[in-house]
Amino acid sequence: MIFKFVNKPIKRVDAYEKVTGKAKFADDLEFANMLYAKVLRTKYPSAKILNINVDKAWEVAGVKSVITAKDVPNNRFGVIVPDQQVFAQDRVFYIGDGIAAVAAESIEAAEKAVEHIEVEYEELPGVFDQLEARNTAPIHPEKSSNEVVHHKLRKGNVEEGFNNSDIILEREYETQFIEHAYLEPEVVIAVPYENNSLVTIYGSVQNPFACRNAVAAVLKVGYNQVRVIQNHIGGSFGGKDEVISSMAARAAVLALKTNRPVKLKNSREDSIIESYKRHPYKMKYKVGVTKEGKIKAMEIEAVADSGGYACQTPFVTWRSVVQATGPYEIPNVKTDTYGYYTNNVYTGAMRGYGSPQVIFAQESLMDELAKELGMNPLEFRLKNIFRDNSITASGQLLNNHKVSLEEVIKKASAKIDFMNKYNKYSNEQNSDKRKGIGMAVSYRGVSLGAEAVDAAGVVLSIQKDGSVYFYSGLAENGQGLKTAYTQIISEELGINIDKINFLIVDTLISPDSGSTVASRATLVGGNATIDAAKRLKKKLTEFLIEKHNLSCSELFFRDNNIYLPDGEKLISFGEAATQAYNSGVFLSTYGWYKSPQISWDEKSGQGKPYFTYVYGCQIAEVEVDTGTGEIKVLNMVAAHDVGRAINPAGVLGQIYGGIMMSLGYGIMEEVDIEEGYINNTNFDEYLIPNAKDMPNIYPIIVENPDPVGPYGAKSIGEPTLELGAAAISNAVAQAIGRRIRSLPLNLEKVLIGRSLKKGRKKK
Amino acid sequence: MIFKFVNKPIKRVDAYEKVTGKAKFADDLEFANMLYAKVLRTKYPSAKILNINVDKAWEVAGVKSVITAKDVPNNRFGVIVPDQQVFAQDRVFYIGDGIAAVAAESIEAAEKAVEHIEVEYEELPGVFDQLEARNTAPIHPEKSSNEVVHHKLRKGNVEEGFNNSDIILEREYETQFIEHAYLEPEVVIAVPYENNSLVTIYGSVQNPFACRNAVAAVLKVGYNQVRVIQNHIGGSFGGKDEVISSMAARAAVLALKTNRPVKLKNSREDSIIESYKRHPYKMKYKVGVTKEGKIKAMEIEAVADSGGYACQTPFVTWRSVVQATGPYEIPNVKTDTYGYYTNNVYTGAMRGYGSPQVIFAQESLMDELAKELGMNPLEFRLKNIFRDNSITASGQLLNNHKVSLEEVIKKASAKIDFMNKYNKYSNEQNSDKRKGIGMAVSYRGVSLGAEAVDAAGVVLSIQKDGSVYFYSGLAENGQGLKTAYTQIISEELGINIDKINFLIVDTLISPDSGSTVASRATLVGGNATIDAAKRLKKKLTEFLIEKHNLSCSELFFRDNNIYLPDGEKLISFGEAATQAYNSGVFLSTYGWYKSPQISWDEKSGQGKPYFTYVYGCQIAEVEVDTGTGEIKVLNMVAAHDVGRAINPAGVLGQIYGGIMMSLGYGIMEEVDIEEGYINNTNFDEYLIPNAKDMPNIYPIIVENPDPVGPYGAKSIGEPTLELGAAAISNAVAQAIGRRIRSLPLNLEKVLIGRSLKKGRKKK
Repeated sequence: MIFKFVNKPIKRVDAYEKVTGKAKFADDLEFANMLYAKVLRTKYPSAKILNINVDKAWEVAGVKSVITAKDVPNNRFGVIVPDQQVFAQDRVFYIGDGIAAVAAESIEAAEKAVEHIEVEYEELPGVFDQLEARNTAPIHPEKSSNEVVHHKLRKGNVEEGFNNSDIILEREYETQFIEHAYLEPEVVIAVPYENNSLVTIYGSVQNPFACRNAVAAVLKVGYNQVRVIQNHIGGSFGGKDEVISSMAARAAVLALKTNRPVKLKNSREDSIIESYKRHPYKMKYKVGVTKEGKIKAMEIEAVADSGGYACQTPFVTWRSVVQATGPYEIPNVKTDTYGYYTNNVYTGAMRGYGSPQVIFAQESLMDELAKELGMNPLEFRLKNIFRDNSITASGQLLNNHKVSLEEVIKKASAKIDFMNKYNKYSNEQNSDKRKGIGMAVSYRGVSLGAEAVDAAGVVLSIQKDGSVYFYSGLAENGQGLKTAYTQIISEELGINIDKINFLIVDTLISPDSGSTVASRATLVGGNATIDAAKRLKKKLTEFLIEKHNLSCSELFFRDNNIYLPDGEKLISFGEAATQAYNSGVFLSTYGWYKSPQISWDEKSGQGKPYFTYVYGCQIAEVEVDTGTGEIKVLNMVAAHDVGRAINPAGVLGQIYGGIMMSLGYGIMEEVDIEEGYINNTNFDEYLIPNAKDMPNIYPIIVENPDPVGPYGAKSIGEPTLELGAAAISNAVAQAIGRRIRSLPLNLEKVLIGRSLKKGRKKK
Repeated sequence: MIFKFVNKPIKRVDAYEKVTGKAKFADDLEFANMLYAKVLRTKYPSAKILNINVDKAWEVAGVKSVITAKDVPNNRFGVIVPDQQVFAQDRVFYIGDGIAAVAAESIEAAEKAVEHIEVEYEELPGVFDQLEARNTAPIHPEKSSNEVVHHKLRKGNVEEGFNNSDIILEREYETQFIEHAYLEPEVVIAVPYENNSLVTIYGSVQNPFACRNAVAAVLKVGYNQVRVIQNHIGGSFGGKDEVISSMAARAAVLALKTNRPVKLKNSREDSIIESYKRHPYKMKYKVGVTKEGKIKAMEIEAVADSGGYACQTPFVTWRSVVQATGPYEIPNVKTDTYGYYTNNVYTGAMRGYGSPQVIFAQESLMDELAKELGMNPLEFRLKNIFRDNSITASGQLLNNHKVSLEEVIKKASAKIDFMNKYNKYSNEQNSDKRKGIGMAVSYRGVSLGAEAVDAAGVVLSIQKDGSVYFYSGLAENGQGLKTAYTQIISEELGINIDKINFLIVDTLISPDSGSTVASRATLVGGNATIDAAKRLKKKLTEFLIEKHNLSCSELFFRDNNIYLPDGEKLISFGEAATQAYNSGVFLSTYGWYKSPQISWDEKSGQGKPYFTYVYGCQIAEVEVDTGTGEIKVLNMVAAHDVGRAINPAGVLGQIYGGIMMSLGYGIMEEVDIEEGYINNTNFDEYLIPNAKDMPNIYPIIVENPDPVGPYGAKSIGEPTLELGAAAISNAVAQAIGRRIRSLPLNLEKVLIGRSLKKGRKKK
């Protein structure tokens, strides 16, 4: 295929408005007569609420409303399990729970009023470890246990597999709570009675439809009474979802009580305390391998800490159960993933979504196995990886797309000269600064998988002057979706990018396309965009053929013009649109795409959980200061098969960002949570990587167009960050000659093998 | 057909929000950091502008911007002829022309600043009569004459027709300028850089797409950069169109200059001075009739005063040329209609749109003819009216719908006992208070007619919970469109009206459906609504049949449920929607309707100018005080064939309102314009009817379903006001025994036969 817009590196279409400050983020919005809200949070992570007295809060000057659970039409909500409350009523479950909220003429008045709310608590013992939670009384009184979910996958017979193995390894791995750490903390504004909606929510909303549905349920009104308009978002990474819904519900109740717009904004501290985190996992892996290096069996138990609420734990642990054995042909598999309630901060969606945890374990284990076998990591992996027509742990035959694992591994290895460096660093290193190189590989199911409906829509509307409106049901969260879709429209309609006005998601207008998650936007939404463009092109072609009495059956759209098959220009695109409207031909359409049928048997864990997969390999080269414990990541190579890069510049951006995040996950980030209290509530103590921590990055875009993707495109957002921590960990193991089996690989673990708890529980 | 929602009298769906004050009109809207604008108008109706100095205006505290023509990217605009200017530059053409505008922190500051703008004029002689304008130099220097338009209709041979007539009458009739007199004067707010639009216009906009296109052209940007959102409108009647576009353009330029929202609001005085009026007509009728009462020939010249600009004069006079001979079979017709520029206030669309003027003349003439022939008005009309298969003046065979003129005339006559009263009042009356009865009949082409594209669209979107969004491209201007469309959706989808959220027109979302004019909304938009509902019903039916393995091919939607053919309930509507979304079936669609093909030959005035017609008869019974000249309208009967009444309560409302407007037109309203200056700029001197002026009204809804209309519906908005003035005039002629051939029939004309000019030209 010869492309004019697609597959070309292109400047982000929202770059200009972002760098000039024209792009409005939620906190930039001001409404006439707006009030400011503040939420009172619980003092304890686990307690009974005996009494709430808001009288003194009402007396603070400027206060317009003080609300608690009893002011909320339907106080219960939850995306999968309705275990959350808009405001805690009788009991609190984690340190971020809200108990009351105030709306006032100024934020200062609201903050002052919140301090005047009197709450009587009875502190309760809590549970703060997911394994302990298995055996303790349920924290949610209405539940019979703390188990949120248990997924199983059964293939072959692991006992037999272990019996036929020469070497059996058992290892435990552990990952930590981490924070999404988006630039912009959460902000919502609820505006009552605007343009026919009972309430309109503006905000840094990752998934406007999920937010709309949650707020409507809380208010007990139809979905068509609540409108959610997405603003520009300063990062989300899965994080601005349920927490935003809960904030939106609170602001909506205040807005309706006061009949005034209400802004509710989290400070960074609020955000770190309230918002959900990446799930910590405790994982046991048992693996059997022949002495020739063929894996015969694998048994896995991965237990996630769900914190106070279920949130997306059922889906996050489902991705883990599918992918926990990695991209390896293993005849016998038994995997169990669990989620348990604790009184820790709750956990939910975060870029990677249940894969970084199991990949850290899986890829650490692969290196441990290789070492046992006396093989190098590359050689060992190549003996076991998926290739065309491999069968996955869930029994899926990989025959509908190119299984390019070997290609990505070889390209990555060649780029960084893996084998030479590996051999070099295997020799004893005597300096204080020791080097290592490590790799990690993965396959990743594209899009939502078999546990959710997977369809998306767009609106494409050519105006009478040929200018174009475009609405997508999936959201620009900073990932570059707008640019990719705009390229697709330009490609299909043959018009310049500046002719297209790509609008923000607005639940009143955009098709409900589910959530912008799971790296699904390019494939699912891209196909819907092509669908829409083709419909309008067809309509316009038919009109022009009739109007101009043409004998051809096809016209060619390019360079803002429409051409006859012989290359002669028929008419400009704009004039064609005007002629069509003047003849009563209407040029707006919905585009829709539903992904191919897939399947999953919850009992056996067998089926086709995803309709296609992407493949990646990242290799990290590190230098460890054995005196300080500091890890310096020197180089990282990242080879990812994206099917087709719609915007290669965007793909590179995803790779850079993914590596940065995985570096934080691998060596520095950790929410310091102690008996449910969070100690590091700002970036002075919660450390994230910055520019000087970044390695040299060598991205490799591999393209094997997928038959299902738009022009063959698949996904890139999440695959880029699921590998880095594992690759770095393998490199560090080589450098220091010792395996660290828990993330992050912080100074203490490198130096003495375990983390020191800071022991300063906050009350 | 058995209906559940349609054809039932129903409370307006917007009644609650309107009576509770929740409905927001444009002036109710406040934006953060909003500025207030004021326009400086010309001092003279015809003058050269020698110099404009705005320096002192800038010095007024609070002033943020002062703009003139040179700040406007494209200063020229005009819906048909680009003869208008956003701000007058070198020359002014009427007393409402704007020269500059100020935006300031308060309206007081803006008003003060406007007074400090210094303009040097050179006053020019003006032309203030459309017949004089024929022979004077063109007021627009770039034109070769003052003629705006000349339409012709030629049928048969009028000379022959007159030769074959026994009686020939020649009469001249005249009508006046009148004001739309909507409750709410014009308001617009322009907001810069909101939600991806360069500028968003909120306002009392009758035709949001026309406004959008005008503002985009003025700003020289694509249509997709300008968004127009309609507010609730306090009346429009054709009036909130071009004048609003011009205000929106001014506010938009100010908003972009200041990067702040700008409100521009007309006071009543501003509104009366600036806004266009109904066209005054001067008409010459010549008619030949046999002594048996058959009309043989008619020759007409109708000359409209277009005022300073062309505006919609070309289309208004086109409807006149089509309908000027009334609903009568006349073998020989020669009609010429003209529009001329003058320096009077410009004229444009107003409910009726070129028909009330010619109907006044035509129906006066019919009574004059009947009197000459010694016949009564009923008998004479019945000899000449259209019936099924009649041929109109333009040669159109009326064979595609029921021609119900005889039915409406007979029903109206019977209701008021016309013949008895007519005979009674024909006897000499000696009291000071004399009674009379008069009738008028009409046919009226439905919708836009052959000179414009006639198509409309809607968006219908069923949300996941079964609640419904609905967008129409045509606008609720107070006429009841929302209620009628909602009834149609409820009827088709079998859901209650409160499940439907009917959204205001927003050019970003609503299909561009042309203007909400010409009483076209029920027919054209109603058909589009049915189209949309049927599409979704089909989609949902197909989904449910597959999902539930049904053997039937049809399902039945009623009472918020979906039923099997045997009457068993399958599922609720809401659950069906949820199931569909959960299976990736998308339930939003556009509906579209394009009206049947019609034709017009501009040279001969022959063709099918409209695809169907409505028929009406109104009869007025009056009492005239010959001492004071006061006319008291006692009773009015109005019989209108609407095809089918979607909302009979709404049809009655249209009849009441139409009669009130026609009464004002007939006996009291007149813009007192003298050498281009308007003397009566508020309702203290511009008299409109109020409740105590209202007669007893006897509405008769006649239903002959039209094959083209939705459920047979046609139109009612305009037919109701085009007849009253003529009927009252005929009744007054009978009462006082003297024919007044100019409107309004004010006290002076009744008493002494002519109007007294007030002679207080304002400067």
